[in-house]
Amino acid sequence: MQEEIITMAHGSGGAAGHELMKEVLLPAFDNKYLREMHDGAKLDLSTNKIAFTTDSYVVKPLFFAGGNIGKLAVCGTVNDLAMTGAVAKYISVGMIIEEGFPIKDLREIVSTMRRAADEAGIYIVTGDTKVVNKGSADGIFINTAGVGERIDNVDISPLNAKAGQNIIVSGYLGDHAATIMASRHNLELPDTVKTDCAPLNHMVKEMLTAVPNIAVLRDPTRGGTAAVLNEIAEQAKVGILLEEEAIPVREEVRGFCDILGFDPLYLANEGKLIAFVNAEDTDKVLSIMHKYEYGKHACVIGKVIDKAIGEVGLKTAVGGIRIVDMPQGEQIPRIC
Amino acid sequence: MQEEIITMAHGSGGAAGHELMKEVLLPAFDNKYLREMHDGAKLDLSTNKIAFTTDSYVVKPLFFAGGNIGKLAVCGTVNDLAMTGAVAKYISVGMIIEEGFPIKDLREIVSTMRRAADEAGIYIVTGDTKVVNKGSADGIFINTAGVGERIDNVDISPLNAKAGQNIIVSGYLGDHAATIMASRHNLELPDTVKTDCAPLNHMVKEMLTAVPNIAVLRDPTRGGTAAVLNEIAEQAKVGILLEEEAIPVREEVRGFCDILGFDPLYLANEGKLIAFVNAEDTDKVLSIMHKYEYGKHACVIGKVIDKAIGEVGLKTAVGGIRIVDMPQGEQIPRIC
Repeated sequence: MQEEIITMAHGSGGAAGHELMKEVLLPAFDNKYLREMHDGAKLDLSTNKIAFTTDSYVVKPLFFAGGNIGKLAVCGTVNDLAMTGAVAKYISVGMIIEEGFPIKDLREIVSTMRRAADEAGIYIVTGDTKVVNKGSADGIFINTAGVGERIDNVDISPLNAKAGQNIIVSGYLGDHAATIMASRHNLELPDTVKTDCAPLNHMVKEMLTAVPNIAVLRDPTRGGTAAVLNEIAEQAKVGILLEEEAIPVREEVRGFCDILGFDPLYLANEGKLIAFVNAEDTDKVLSIMHKYEYGKHACVIGKVIDKAIGEVGLKTAVGGIRIVDMPQGEQIPRIC
Repeated sequence: MQEEIITMAHGSGGAAGHELMKEVLLPAFDNKYLREMHDGAKLDLSTNKIAFTTDSYVVKPLFFAGGNIGKLAVCGTVNDLAMTGAVAKYISVGMIIEEGFPIKDLREIVSTMRRAADEAGIYIVTGDTKVVNKGSADGIFINTAGVGERIDNVDISPLNAKAGQNIIVSGYLGDHAATIMASRHNLELPDTVKTDCAPLNHMVKEMLTAVPNIAVLRDPTRGGTAAVLNEIAEQAKVGILLEEEAIPVREEVRGFCDILGFDPLYLANEGKLIAFVNAEDTDKVLSIMHKYEYGKHACVIGKVIDKAIGEVGLKTAVGGIRIVDMPQGEQIPRIC
């Protein structure tokens, strides 16, 4: 590219937009679907039972320990599809870029997206790029939408939560939010703390194939574990009781939370899942998760009960129970 | 809603975000898929041959004669699917909203989206809302992605363009761009000139069902007719020759273009299509288009030739031929 920054012309339907496409986007995402250069991708699925989801990413800063906005955008949509019981296959990428954005940063973001897509085993098949005037956006915003093939005989729904089920979390909570907060405030965190952003689809596929009656899957992103569990308790009309001592949080993240007054249950994660599993399936599900890098610290953090309907309680280390409310107001803006 | 403007809290995963969802978004878009309130929608299609597309909308101003950003966002994706030979079924909506945005404007946008979806016969099945700080966006940006079912025996591709085909346009060119430009500069335009934004899917479905071998379909949005035809000429390695006198442009729009120095062939349209059709099918395709409100002014504007490969020429009223280049630089920023 002659230009080292994005200009308004890159957002036109004309020559500069084509150059951006041909020199930056297509080489990064290259695959047979994109190469057709059509208004949309034509795809042949192996089933007509699909899942479809979307998320926009506005994280600030754009680059942080362990990832960037592009990695979030790919993994987030892959994971949302997994949480519906589907195997992600194809995603779209819609970018809104602020005039003046460095093309080298764009190259880094799209090459990260390609690596994340490769790890997840999916294709970026269609996309769109808009440019807005300086001051009308904040660097770059990325939307992804995704299509997945639903796994047979699986029925994941928050309404399936029932008393007696165990609640599994796939690993340490709060890493992503702590990373973003630290980066935003120029605080030092140990190298062990970086975004947990990761594609969970391979692990989820094996979990669901082995145990199709997993009841609920959710990824605790914005609003954290507290928001997800409150939503499920309310929708399924059950109670949820967590064991404080069982909740996996890195020492470094816990210390960070103590200093800043955050509760790890409210922190966003980008590579974690919560599963509601029948008691008798719990060991089997955990043993599968433990085989995966992204599930090796999976553990049971609580259970579904038939009391305190609609509420989430936390049995504290000293034996009391405190209520874990739905988060009110804004926790941490632009976390993803 | 207690709040009359969007606050950062509406973008959290917590209570305010849920309230926005329950009081504004769900009531507007309501359908059985959305009501599941899952991370993604589970959909049963009637085929496993799909089309998938996305577009982000950053139009300025957000409201203009004949429509608003929400209408563009729904129709644009419906039309992109139609242009691949598919029948739009489901769309996702990802909104990025600037803190302070009036909730009454949001209500108007989402109710327009619902009406457009109803007209197109599609469902808005999944979505996401992010809020960014004041000054980090410009009101609201909307991304839509869409899934459509491909029509059997149809193969639409720019590569199908071949010498001898006629080039049909579905109606007056330039209305959308003229409307946006006039609105932006507080210029008066007659009531006859408003955005042409419209869902073309019903008309395209009948065209493709009756004439499955329509070769190419494209909607001339950003970059206008000139960009689309140049792309096709380059990709298919054909020449294109237009007849200036055949190109349908409203008198009012032509006058507007003359004053501001625009060429209608470079203006964006949001409810028009260009079809490349074999000579023997032309009358049949036109007669179908003429039955529809959005195709009643459809006409042939030129043909594909085997000379001047990769170029688009315009035979002028006085008999000369001038080259219609790919647009260079930015024509009209943020037109959609």
